Parts: sequence; C-alpha cells; structure tokens
Amino acid sequence: MTDSPITPRGSDFAAWYQDVVFEGDMAEPAEVVKGCMVIRPNGYAVWEIIQRELDNRFKATGHQNIYLPLLIPQSFLQKEAEHVEGFSPELAVVTIAGGKQLEEPYVIRPTSETIVGHFFAKWIQSYRDLPLLYNQWANVIRWELRTRMFLRTTEFLWQEGHTAHSTHEEAMEEVLRILDVYAEVAEDVMAMPVIKGAKTKAEKFAGALKSFSIEAMMQNGMALQAGTSHDLGQNFGKAFNVQFQTSVGKLDYVWQTSWGVSTRLVGGLIMSHSDDKGLVLPPKVAPRKSVLVPIFRKEHEKAQVMEVATKLAQDLGAHIDTREGISPGAKFFHWERLGVPVVFELGPRDVASGNIVLKRRDTQTKEVIPQTEAVAKLAATLEAMQHDLHAAAKQRLKDNTVLANSIEEVESMASDGKFVMAHLMDDPETDARIKSFKASVRNVPLVDEFDGPGKCIVTGEPVDRRVVIAKAY
Amino acid sequence: MTDSPITPRGSDFAAWYQDVVFEGDMAEPAEVVKGCMVIRPNGYAVWEIIQRELDNRFKATGHQNIYLPLLIPQSFLQKEAEHVEGFSPELAVVTIAGGKQLEEPYVIRPTSETIVGHFFAKWIQSYRDLPLLYNQWANVIRWELRTRMFLRTTEFLWQEGHTAHSTHEEAMEEVLRILDVYAEVAEDVMAMPVIKGAKTKAEKFAGALKSFSIEAMMQNGMALQAGTSHDLGQNFGKAFNVQFQTSVGKLDYVWQTSWGVSTRLVGGLIMSHSDDKGLVLPPKVAPRKSVLVPIFRKEHEKAQVMEVATKLAQDLGAHIDTREGISPGAKFFHWERLGVPVVFELGPRDVASGNIVLKRRDTQTKEVIPQTEAVAKLAATLEAMQHDLHAAAKQRLKDNTVLANSIEEVESMASDGKFVMAHLMDDPETDARIKSFKASVRNVPLVDEFDGPGKCIVTGEPVDRRVVIAKAY
Repeated sequence: MTDSPITPRGSDFAAWYQDVVFEGDMAEPAEVVKGCMVIRPNGYAVWEIIQRELDNRFKATGHQNIYLPLLIPQSFLQKEAEHVEGFSPELAVVTIAGGKQLEEPYVIRPTSETIVGHFFAKWIQSYRDLPLLYNQWANVIRWELRTRMFLRTTEFLWQEGHTAHSTHEEAMEEVLRILDVYAEVAEDVMAMPVIKGAKTKAEKFAGALKSFSIEAMMQNGMALQAGTSHDLGQNFGKAFNVQFQTSVGKLDYVWQTSWGVSTRLVGGLIMSHSDDKGLVLPPKVAPRKSVLVPIFRKEHEKAQVMEVATKLAQDLGAHIDTREGISPGAKFFHWERLGVPVVFELGPRDVASGNIVLKRRDTQTKEVIPQTEAVAKLAATLEAMQHDLHAAAKQRLKDNTVLANSIEEVESMASDGKFVMAHLMDDPETDARIKSFKASVRNVPLVDEFDGPGKCIVTGEPVDRRVVIAKAY
Repeated sequence: MTDSPITPRGSDFAAWYQDVVFEGDMAEPAEVVKGCMVIRPNGYAVWEIIQRELDNRFKATGHQNIYLPLLIPQSFLQKEAEHVEGFSPELAVVTIAGGKQLEEPYVIRPTSETIVGHFFAKWIQSYRDLPLLYNQWANVIRWELRTRMFLRTTEFLWQEGHTAHSTHEEAMEEVLRILDVYAEVAEDVMAMPVIKGAKTKAEKFAGALKSFSIEAMMQNGMALQAGTSHDLGQNFGKAFNVQFQTSVGKLDYVWQTSWGVSTRLVGGLIMSHSDDKGLVLPPKVAPRKSVLVPIFRKEHEKAQVMEVATKLAQDLGAHIDTREGISPGAKFFHWERLGVPVVFELGPRDVASGNIVLKRRDTQTKEVIPQTEAVAKLAATLEAMQHDLHAAAKQRLKDNTVLANSIEEVESMASDGKFVMAHLMDDPETDARIKSFKASVRNVPLVDEFDGPGKCIVTGEPVDRRVVIAKAY
C-alpha cells in the first residue's frame, strides 16, 4: 500500500507509533492541554478490559476499592523528605478556588501516598485493623516535559493500591503478590512478556525502601516499565504517625505498600504487537473479537447475503458492518487498523457454497471455511492468535537479550536496541555511569536465568546476578 | 437500642444521614480537603454497581466511552456567555505547574462541554460523522460553600454524556432517551421513584436551551435532583464553531446534548431506604446480597456448624463471616448497619434440625426455614425486598404529594416537607417568588398526573399543567 496512512516501523518507529495510535482510534494529543491526550473509543474500550482483568484479581486477593480526594494539601507532600524531593518538580498547584486565593494551596495528586498516610492514621489503631488492603482507580497529574501518548502523559489514568500491615514480612508478601498479578495480566491477557525484578536504589520510588517492577521489551528493543510495586517500609507510617497497638500491647508503626499500573499499559500493548498495517490486539483485550463484512453488488444479492450474514454474526458474536456508501475494501482497512483479531467476509458466492472467508489480523492469512464450522474455527483462531502473539513477543525478547561483560559492551549493545544483561553493583554511581549513555538499569531480575554471581563491570565488587540494562521509555 | 450509634431520623434527619453514611462504611468527610469526602469500600462498591447498570445501558443505546483532560484552558469557559457566568464562581484554578507560573491558567473541569466543543470541531466535518454519541466517567470539581456527603461535595464522580446531532429533533430524542435510562436505573435498580420533567428557565443548565431532570423524594420529603439531561441547542456549536456539511451540501452548526448523573445518586439511595438501624440497600445495588453468620460456643460445635455453613454459603453465594473474637450479636449489628439485604444464622440446633434462620433487613423479620429451601427462599426474599422498597417509596411519594392553589398554600405545604403541585408560569420572576421561602420549582412533569391546565398562582396567566415545588438538597 503506497497510500497507507501508517509510517512503516522500519523507517521511523516513533512516527509509526503515533500513526497506529491515531488510525487505531486509540488516542490523540489534546494539544490545548499541555502533554495530555484524549483517549478515543477503541483505546478506552481496551483500557476498560485491562481494568476489569486487574480489578477482578485485586478483589480475588482481598482488596477493596475506595476513592480519595484529587486535591492534596501542599504541606502533606513535605512530610516525607524523599517523596517531596521526587515529586515537587512535577506538581500542578491549585492556588485559586471559588474566586479566592487559597490560604494553603492544593496540589493535584501525582500519587496518593501522603493523603493515604493521613487517613490510615485515622483508620488504624490496633493490629486487629490490619491488614488494610485498598485500591483506587483514579487520574493523576505529573507535569512532564517530554510526553508521548499513553507512555508518558501529563495526566494519566491508573490504579494505585495502598496497603498497611503489621509486619515487614507480610508487607513484602503483598508487594510480590501484586507483582505476580501484574505479570499475569501482562503475559496471559496482554500477551506481553515481562521481567519481574527489583529496581536499583537510584531508580526506586521516592519514599520507598525498595521498588519492584515488570519490564517489557517493545518492538524497537526499548524497555517499558509496565508496573511497579513498592515496599514503603515504615517511611510513610512515621511521616504520618500511623501507629498501631500490636498483639502484645506495644505501639509500632505500620508497614505499608503501594503499587500501580496505568494507561501506559495500553502503549506497551500497542508497541508489542502492532504492525505496519496498524493496530494488532491480542484477542483477550480486543473490544470486538470479530467483525463480519457482508459483500454484495445487486439488490437481490443483498437480501440473500444479509439473511445469512445476520444469522452467522449472531452465532459468532460478531459485529456486522452494515454501513452503506462504504466499499468492502475500505471496511477491511478500517477494521484492520482498529486491530480486530478476525474479520469475516461473506459474499454471494459464499452464500451459494455454504462457506465464509476468515481473515486473521496478525498473520494476514485468509481461509475459506464451511459456515457450519465458523464458530469453532473462530474460537480456535482467537486462541491461536493469543498464544502466537505471546510466543512471538517472548522469542523477540529472547533474541534481543544479550550478555555483556564490560561497560563498553553494555554501551554498544544497549545502543543497538538490546536488553543487556551485565553484572553491576546497586549503587547510584554505577547507575549514573549507565545513564551517561542514555540507557538505564531496568531491574535486577527476581529469577536469574543466566550465570549467577560475578564481578561488577564498573567497580569489580562481587554481585550475585546480572541486571537488565536498556534504553527505556 | 439505647447505645445505637445512629441518631433516629425523627430527632435529627441530617445527623441520621451522616451516621448512616459513616456506620454503613459508605463515606467520611475528608476534612483536610475542603468539602471533599473519602468514599469508603461499601460506598464505592455500591457506586460500581450503579456505574455498571448505567454503562451497560449507555452502550446498548450506541454510546462509546472516551476520556478528555481534567484541565481546561480558562479561556475556553468564556466562549459561551451563560456557561461562564454559571460556573465561574465554582472554579478551582491551576496557576502553577512544573514549578512555573502558567501563562494561561487551567481550570479543573466543573463539567466538560467547553473542551468537548473544542474536539467536536476537530472530529465533525460532515453529516456522515453524525451522530457522535460519547460518554465519559470522570471526576469534576465545583467549589461549593455548603457540602454534604454524596449529595453535594466539592469533588464528585460522575458520568457526562456528550452527543452531537444533525437536527434538533434528533438531539431532543437523545435527551429524552437518556432521561428514560436514568429513570429506569433509579426505579428498577435503585428502587427510587422519580418524576421526569423539564426544568424551568431559571433552573436550567448554564448554556442549555432546555434542561430535563429526574427528581426523587427523600424520606424527609425533600427533593433530590438525581440526574439531568440537557438540550444544548446550537449554543456550544456556535461558541466552538462546530460546523458540518449537511446532506444537501450546506453548512450548519451541530445540535448537542449533555447529560449526567453522579455519586449524588448514592446519597439519594441512602436517604430513600435506610432506617434508624442504619443502611438499607435494595438487593440489586447491594455488593453483598447475603451473609451467613455461623454460631457456636464449643469446639465440637464449631466443626459441625462450619461444615454445614460452608456448604450452604457456597450454594447461596453468601459471604460467610468467620471472624474470630467477635460475638454473633456484634456481627449481626455490623451487617445490619452495612445494609446487607439478608443475613442467615446457623447454630448447632439448626444443624441438628436441618434448618437455617433467615433475617430480612428492611422488615427485620426472622424466619426459620429448611436448609433445602434456602436458595429458593433467598431468591424470593431478595425479589420481594426489591419490590417492596420500591412500592414503599412510591407510596411515600404519593402520600406526600399535595395540590396547592395559592402561593400561601405552596409556602405552607412546602415547609411541611411536601411535593407541592401548583400551576405556575415558567418565568424567572415566579421562580424567585418560590425561592423567597427556600423552596424551588423542581420540574414540570412530562406526564401530567393531575388536572391539566390552570392559571398561574402568581400571575394568573394560563399554564398547561402543574409543576412540582419542594425544598431540595
């Protein structure tokens, strides 16, 4: 297609992404609101599916949803030293409300740990009140300088979990439980393989003891931090005086966790599977699994075709595209760009022969099958496509993961779009060394799939496994 | 109960409401954020059910969800004269972001008509692009002076529908279709009877040609505007230059609608059905339809009871309350205050006799039934409770609706907590007359259930039906 509205990946990956997002009816830049986007119907429908998958799992693991205010008194952020330092540069501040200058400004939440701290202090008195397992679905604002739709926007939608526990051990179990939930949704629902691991000290959440992430590889080899889960220790408990009476009658500060994934996941999904023809959606996150395009030229054909098409679409649970004044070809391109996994065509000859044409989005394969087998074939095709997209992404991750044993190798391989596994100390100075060539330590994998301990390529100090280094969004 | 944490309705309705909201784990005041609340787990779970019921109906009527930015350039509000006048006093304004004073401040959306206008102008060129049927689930901020949990809070959660049409007639069909959806969810799901009608000129949405509402009666006789649907005419189309080419090749401005319901519905639900013992939830909006409390004293009883209880709870889809260190009595009060429709008790004697005790929340009736009939009896009880709560509320609305034929009668009856039906002109001056005694014209019912035309009790002018006048939240 010379007239494709989509820039090929090979010529300009960033332009390709923008085109896929726009042509796939996923989002568009808001322009009049700095760094924001409008989430369009197809994008929001995908987000709703991801939300549902996550929310079901949160509830199954005992969490309840609550909703906290959008605005936070500015002084709250100052109560945790690292936290205020981390978030201050990105805050949007409300100074006028109801026609008056406010005595104390409010910030729009960049995240809610501080206001959670305030309420946990009200809600928690005794070990009997613990654990508290809460989550909220919300919008947040972080004033970013460089934005990209879904991946980094000034405002984004997310969920933020906030839990309080009576022991550090229990809090750590929670942190890792949620990391597993995130990995499961990424892999099993979004067909997006991820590496679970610990962030380095330099990359952890502002105010956490330790952060964990899932990291995914995009088609250009860049990393995307797709979700984080934080062990907050007693930092916020101390900052907000969240004390509880232990089972032996002593006073202690609660151990907290927080964790979040956002609309950024949708960006990761797009960059994992889409192709030069547009969006490709794994069936499990596709708002429409299949669409049926009836084809006819003459009026008597229309009646014939529509009768069979209507019946089949109903059996298949397929959306039937009955728009008039639009050619079948234009319809095919439309649904292709929207990432619909399976498109059926049904014309007069198919009606006569009792067949129907099934086209699979990712492989672009077309198959003529008996109408009687369409339902079973659709189910099998969706299952195969879900599996194959995951397998392909896993293979890509494997093929583009390399070992490096010197800092020079790391630099050259990372610049080449690889996930580079290297032995590296967890020290802000070694992180800075990696940053000097615009890559970063993504995480220290929980499971070592390589060669175990070794010596840090910068300092020579012993470290127990290789870390993941890559250029990242 | 002399030690009830809930103030009786009869002694102080406002205090009763606050107590029910708090004890029912529905919400609590945020205090540190002016006029805001924290929505607690039970309250959020009820809201999720209402959201789902609405969202399903929006989708079934062809609407798609999108998401627009929280922040709106301040200048946008000034483009529609009535709109800016209506909303200016209530705005929260962001003047600083990313550490810098903004050249043009942003307002936090009080509603999104203006930014929708901006995007509709980009998205709509031709009659082929119409209708556009969008909805968004979002938070908004209106800086209110007097707030009350759920009913009026500075920040609230809502949905706002925004649609564009090629003719006024089609837009009006949409306005009334949505009013029907709102009424259906209120009546059939929330068991809350409502009066559908047109707002007067004085009470319409700032920027609309005409507004419509559903109005419900709370237990103290006060009115609650529970949802609104607006015919925006071409006002925003002209303000934002949303023009389209008609099917005959001319240019015209689009006809728009907007419509919304909010977390205010949860307040209406609470004030419609709850009693002096706490929250009462119609089964269709109850997050937990039933709870089973196992009762035992000795260890050997525990094993016996728990075996049967576990099996029954599973069959019933009931939550089983296995908390230790809490007496059965405390558990009953707990679930009662949370508004769970049915609570089962199962003790050693019930296990021996093959029975179980079923307690219905609204009637407080207790029944001993055979365990084999529990599933069927639960279903029947939930259905009866849903029906009876609706019937009781309808009866209350009927009993407290009165006819008045003079302004003095209106004043005295409205002060008495009645819905007063009177003939009144739609004129801001007659509205002001009603406002003078702290009541207001709620709406002009779409269906006249009274005596047809009459003369305005203020001006003597002919009007075609009685309007609803009441004190309102």
